[in-house]
Amino acid sequence: MNDASSGPARVPSTALFTDRYELTMLDAALHDGSARRRCVFELFGRRLPGARRFGVVAGTGRLLQQLQDFHFGEDELRFLRDNKVVDAETVRFLEDYRFTGTITGYREGELYFPGSPVLTVEGSFAEAVVLETIALSVLNHDSAVANAAARMSIAAGDRPLAEMGSRRASEHGAVAAARAAYIAGFGATSNLEAGRTWGIPTMGTAAHAWTLLHDTEEEAFRAQIAALGGDTTLLVDTYDIRTGVERAIRVAGTALGGVRIDSGDLPTVAAEVRAQLDALGATTTRITVTSDLDEFAIAALAASPVDAYGVGTSVVTGSGTPTAGMVFKLVARQDAAGSWVSVAKASTDKASKGGRKAAFRTLERGVATSELIAVADGFESMPTAADHPQARALQVTLVDAGETDAAHLGPAGVTAAREHHLRVREELPVRALALSRSEPALPTRFVDVA
Amino acid sequence: MNDASSGPARVPSTALFTDRYELTMLDAALHDGSARRRCVFELFGRRLPGARRFGVVAGTGRLLQQLQDFHFGEDELRFLRDNKVVDAETVRFLEDYRFTGTITGYREGELYFPGSPVLTVEGSFAEAVVLETIALSVLNHDSAVANAAARMSIAAGDRPLAEMGSRRASEHGAVAAARAAYIAGFGATSNLEAGRTWGIPTMGTAAHAWTLLHDTEEEAFRAQIAALGGDTTLLVDTYDIRTGVERAIRVAGTALGGVRIDSGDLPTVAAEVRAQLDALGATTTRITVTSDLDEFAIAALAASPVDAYGVGTSVVTGSGTPTAGMVFKLVARQDAAGSWVSVAKASTDKASKGGRKAAFRTLERGVATSELIAVADGFESMPTAADHPQARALQVTLVDAGETDAAHLGPAGVTAAREHHLRVREELPVRALALSRSEPALPTRFVDVA
Repeated sequence: MNDASSGPARVPSTALFTDRYELTMLDAALHDGSARRRCVFELFGRRLPGARRFGVVAGTGRLLQQLQDFHFGEDELRFLRDNKVVDAETVRFLEDYRFTGTITGYREGELYFPGSPVLTVEGSFAEAVVLETIALSVLNHDSAVANAAARMSIAAGDRPLAEMGSRRASEHGAVAAARAAYIAGFGATSNLEAGRTWGIPTMGTAAHAWTLLHDTEEEAFRAQIAALGGDTTLLVDTYDIRTGVERAIRVAGTALGGVRIDSGDLPTVAAEVRAQLDALGATTTRITVTSDLDEFAIAALAASPVDAYGVGTSVVTGSGTPTAGMVFKLVARQDAAGSWVSVAKASTDKASKGGRKAAFRTLERGVATSELIAVADGFESMPTAADHPQARALQVTLVDAGETDAAHLGPAGVTAAREHHLRVREELPVRALALSRSEPALPTRFVDVA
Repeated sequence: MNDASSGPARVPSTALFTDRYELTMLDAALHDGSARRRCVFELFGRRLPGARRFGVVAGTGRLLQQLQDFHFGEDELRFLRDNKVVDAETVRFLEDYRFTGTITGYREGELYFPGSPVLTVEGSFAEAVVLETIALSVLNHDSAVANAAARMSIAAGDRPLAEMGSRRASEHGAVAAARAAYIAGFGATSNLEAGRTWGIPTMGTAAHAWTLLHDTEEEAFRAQIAALGGDTTLLVDTYDIRTGVERAIRVAGTALGGVRIDSGDLPTVAAEVRAQLDALGATTTRITVTSDLDEFAIAALAASPVDAYGVGTSVVTGSGTPTAGMVFKLVARQDAAGSWVSVAKASTDKASKGGRKAAFRTLERGVATSELIAVADGFESMPTAADHPQARALQVTLVDAGETDAAHLGPAGVTAAREHHLRVREELPVRALALSRSEPALPTRFVDVA
């Protein structure tokens, strides 16, 4: 055992999870003095991932944790100096770097729509510009997974849903994916690190290797029951499913906890296995299916006698859309005289909406009707919840003058995000729950306030 | 600055990047004694990612580094104990866990085909079974990125190609993606951590925020030139490209290093900008394009006056196939008497090929013709390179009785993998270089050796 040489510990700071151009801009801005200009950066999606009907914000708690570790130590500064990324003046600035600004944003687990100001970072150009990559990395990845997971969770209804896709994601990404899936309605994960770091329930019993390790399937079943008890789940499709089920009940008795099926045409196989189990008297033995499921396959199994789903690849890869595609844009800044100016890129295909935003979800009889986004140049005229009593204010303060609200951190933050997500999902109109590609379920309405 | 509380350092071991069922199986195997059986696990792809013509192995060096940190310390054991994942006997086993077996595999950067034994792990069931998730996580993620990157690198030909997709990948995944893209032919990355950890060249100058921070585009250009010199690249599409180019040359002179275009219909825009630059006398000013490129868009720009490409989302997400989908299967084990038995799952749609494998690439006049895989039950009869003088042996020893070959680690391992990849890509038949979906470019031939 050698903790000192361990892999992740080689990266004690998150500050280099950063695109080089952010430090190049910082360097140039310190030269011409523009580094001191106060700025508002906004993180938002121009569209929803995969032409879906709603987006799900995830990653906020992780990002806040990463920002606490975003500092430039001797090792980071040496790399920047040796590679001439920045000059000596910028190195001196980075030595003391600490984000002292304010971050507001949608609560983790909240739904979002095109143009929703998911995260707003306010500070000097120098302190805010360097956070672009890390903010986007965390929120784009986690929100893409959460979006897919929410759709699967809706399709699964009350049936338990477990995430088991670690093997199809990068090793750290897998932990983040397990966390995002749990926030969006999954009940458990196979990933032990997600259990340790984020307090997510973990699950799992045996793979095909367990059966193949033994001289016969029966020996494998006996050994598993002996070690894990009769409530375990036996994997019955290593050789022949019908024989496997028959053996499972012969070995375990009719009180066997469950069987798992990982191959075949699942609606057919599930019906056959249920009939076989019932005929054997194992009427309470549960059926778990785990073969290449996505939200569409889960929906197609709604009428099948399936008790639980395990989902791998499709949830950790965002079911066809592995990134939420959100961007981080400067939307307002002070000029040389200290007055606020709204700014926006004008490029034909990537235009964005300048100005500071306040976001509300309007509701009618508890059902969401629109994403209302008030836009202003300055700060004095921003509306508040009091101005929109019929609507829910969507932004909360996450970091106040450099101080993080600890309620969003750690396992407690995850639990709160999951509860929030499941609560606000109830506000969606029924049409938002359909799985097919479509327009966003709510219109985004921008309102300029003078 | 507070290194002690930094995020990644909270995970000093990689041992919990593991699916729970591996430890559950270990627990049961220690109970019935099967934990001591010697096993051969094989990591392979049933098919190529995205119906492509070849696969690229990437992640091997990262995996070997992670395996060195795969140990169960007090914190990991406490989690397993408190959550009743395993019993006291298994905790004692894990306290002393260290992989003492042998790992052979394809060299990092090597090409692979359906059924290629990309990685082979030999050891007791107990020590080998727990490596399934981490091996798959690393190789599936990195190989998916490398596969997409190789196709982009082929499409780009001699033009420089930079990876800049960190914002569209999880923060650690982004570093791994930059590394995989570099191995598969990219020349640089925007990701600073990839520069520090893996020695990959980094690049980047300015974003739209830089222009928007200033009162005019001209001021922004002047400030950038003042700070970074005239060889820098100016981003010219914040407002209007034609005006931007004109201003760029007015401010920087005709020796300006380059302009970057991040929007618009690139073939049209590139031609217009080239004509404008030439007319202004800036004949050596380079054009870099960076807007939503993938291998198809790069190929479509082959005849356009583009000097360099920057690729984001599509490379870090595997261009539509974010995981290589490889699996980790028990293919041989000893029985109670110590004799070797080939084993394989028989499930209709997921059958695999039991037995230990030796892999060769056959060549004719330097062009690869097939993936030749010899299959045997035991070890004595395995063929070696001497048995196939016309072919290239594909497997090397990565870990020998627990000792890692250090040549594969760190930046030196990355350099070696990149060189190996570019060399073996030259062996591919021309039809393998096409971008369209198709069958694998080489047939896989399994040969049973008695």
